[in-house]
Amino acid sequence: MSLNPQRTVSELKELRALTADENGAQRVAWTDTWLKAREWFSSKLRDLPVEHHYDAAGNNWVTLPGKSEKALLLGGHLDSVPNGGWLDGALDVMAGLEILRRISTEYSGKPPVTIRVVDWADEEGARFGRSLLGSSAFAGTHTIEADRVRTDRDGITLEDALRRCGVEIGKFPEATKEQMSAAAYLELHIEQGPVLEGMGLPLGVVLGTKGVERHILNFHGQEAHSGSTPMNARRDALAAAAKLALEIRNIAKKHEDSVCTMGSLKTFPGIVTAVVGRCEATLDQRDLDSGVLAEMYRDAQEASRRFAAEEHCTVDWSRLWSIEPIPFNPHLLDLCEQSIRETAGTSHRLPSGPLHDAAEVSRAGIPTVMMFVQSLNGISHNKIEDTKEEHLEMSVAALDRLASKTMAWIEQQP
Amino acid sequence: MSLNPQRTVSELKELRALTADENGAQRVAWTDTWLKAREWFSSKLRDLPVEHHYDAAGNNWVTLPGKSEKALLLGGHLDSVPNGGWLDGALDVMAGLEILRRISTEYSGKPPVTIRVVDWADEEGARFGRSLLGSSAFAGTHTIEADRVRTDRDGITLEDALRRCGVEIGKFPEATKEQMSAAAYLELHIEQGPVLEGMGLPLGVVLGTKGVERHILNFHGQEAHSGSTPMNARRDALAAAAKLALEIRNIAKKHEDSVCTMGSLKTFPGIVTAVVGRCEATLDQRDLDSGVLAEMYRDAQEASRRFAAEEHCTVDWSRLWSIEPIPFNPHLLDLCEQSIRETAGTSHRLPSGPLHDAAEVSRAGIPTVMMFVQSLNGISHNKIEDTKEEHLEMSVAALDRLASKTMAWIEQQP
Repeated sequence: MSLNPQRTVSELKELRALTADENGAQRVAWTDTWLKAREWFSSKLRDLPVEHHYDAAGNNWVTLPGKSEKALLLGGHLDSVPNGGWLDGALDVMAGLEILRRISTEYSGKPPVTIRVVDWADEEGARFGRSLLGSSAFAGTHTIEADRVRTDRDGITLEDALRRCGVEIGKFPEATKEQMSAAAYLELHIEQGPVLEGMGLPLGVVLGTKGVERHILNFHGQEAHSGSTPMNARRDALAAAAKLALEIRNIAKKHEDSVCTMGSLKTFPGIVTAVVGRCEATLDQRDLDSGVLAEMYRDAQEASRRFAAEEHCTVDWSRLWSIEPIPFNPHLLDLCEQSIRETAGTSHRLPSGPLHDAAEVSRAGIPTVMMFVQSLNGISHNKIEDTKEEHLEMSVAALDRLASKTMAWIEQQP
Repeated sequence: MSLNPQRTVSELKELRALTADENGAQRVAWTDTWLKAREWFSSKLRDLPVEHHYDAAGNNWVTLPGKSEKALLLGGHLDSVPNGGWLDGALDVMAGLEILRRISTEYSGKPPVTIRVVDWADEEGARFGRSLLGSSAFAGTHTIEADRVRTDRDGITLEDALRRCGVEIGKFPEATKEQMSAAAYLELHIEQGPVLEGMGLPLGVVLGTKGVERHILNFHGQEAHSGSTPMNARRDALAAAAKLALEIRNIAKKHEDSVCTMGSLKTFPGIVTAVVGRCEATLDQRDLDSGVLAEMYRDAQEASRRFAAEEHCTVDWSRLWSIEPIPFNPHLLDLCEQSIRETAGTSHRLPSGPLHDAAEVSRAGIPTVMMFVQSLNGISHNKIEDTKEEHLEMSVAALDRLASKTMAWIEQQP
């Protein structure tokens, strides 16, 4: 049985028919539809010589034992956001399965190194607001007490929702056992952005996941009557925030591939007849280089203070969240690029703005790389998320080449 | 009995003690506290040779009949916003009463022209969102059907709240009868802005009330992932709105005394991880000159379209409300200026950004002027609203001079 990328596309359509409604994919982690997706996935394993189990964090491991215990990991996630797309996460898992099938056939069930496909639990964090849940347990970067008491919109705690699916959050640390003998991790994903489409390329090498600085800012001015307060007597908090909303674009554009986003801005009292007394804004800054990220953060702070002073306002900052950049393994980047060139002729290296499970695996010290396949219109987390079928098939073929090269690399290691 | 401005200040303190709590004045129209204020005001009329009645819209009329039926009207309002100040509206009524006392004494109860003090009903519109209610009924500019079904936050209709106070909204048109023989209208008010304080002047002549153009704008861009969307691939609706938030200041500053305010700005979806797909902003523009107002409105429209195009967005506008500028009577402006100069030495002419009952009276064709007294820190609609007592006393004295000059002017008329 040779590699059959068309089968991956067919299986993804099968999964969509089973788990999507008219609004899109509904495979939200820890729900019945997600469990149904996992059951369907298990049914695909029947005729394969694999061992199959869920770890302490609910990650689903499919293992084809090799001559060596050293393992090549191929990962993805079957869970989706509500009203999600058919490819985000599921492509990665189904491509991994197709490659496992090819390797199993080629080596008559006993490849030189062990092959493992993993379906991570709750990559999206859609229900409890905690993404990368299963992979962070695997990596040992998870903190139980921070997540146990999270609740969904119905007031159900994360702990109870997991227990219903047979997962005890108290046992999460045991998931790190799965790191044993892991020699490399590969993840294929749709880009979820417009870069490859804009360049007319089907596939790209992912350099790593960008670090993130996420803050909330408050500009404080003076609420005043819109009719009786002359323009030159105002302390308009919105004006200071508006200047920053524009300046963050200059701050980002000083660097290649950096992004800065003001996604939310709120005005107080926020009425048509009052000059804005307080303005609250969020700022999300991302770059693959920690030095660049730190510089952008300093630039934004400095600019915010300057604009506050110009408008006779003050500003304060509060960090919402941050994570360091996670660059992928240099040798695997090269292997990924070779695989893409052999499949598609041309490759491109780009960072990932969104986080992925691969970031957690990399934090565990396992050599990691990701491959992106083009997204149509850069749209994801939506039912219209899509990729040309020819590109999907190329992505499976390229990941398969990468798997072969990585197996050889693992074999060479002492 | 000669004019006693100190008594006006004492009476305002008496009213404050009766109708304010630790959060400020609570004389919201159509509430028990407002009725208590009106009852207290009536008690002040006992020893005066005046006729006293409520009109069909609940306006409170105190009439000192003169040798001529031609009447000088002195107006204000006892109602306040919730948690309001001690002076807004009440100063005007109590100053009018003090001047009526002086005239009654001077002319032994029979002045050459009739003197009427009016306490307008519901100037603030604080409970039902409809300001200038009583004075618009007087002016005949009120539309019953637009207001009958307004509700307060408890779901009580305006019609029911008025009925409880003995006022039938269906009879509002009868209030126009009070226009009969009205020859001039004078209104004293705190400035509620920082202009006179900034110039070190106690009193100012009000040129008129500014016209208002009030709109809601929506900029439409494209929601996109903050991590995966490069800066040059964004259609950021917030960026277009931010440019306009800054540009409206330049638009206003092209003209003297113009104001433009963006008081509310909302972002959609308004989350930290998404480029803003839609941005809704309010715009409030005011000027005393209708040509200037129209030019500012055109300038803002043109700028919004330009910024939308620059950001690959679109923009649409929707009018919330508008009113034309209402300039006061030129001869009364001169009399007001003379009165202020004789009292305070120096005068200044300035427009009013906020609307006042005087605007409605002027729309009824009655020669009208207002006088402003300095506000401390430009603050109003707040318990810390204040004015120096010496300035309050000067304002009563200046209004009294203006009343005498206006009586003489009325007498001269054929």
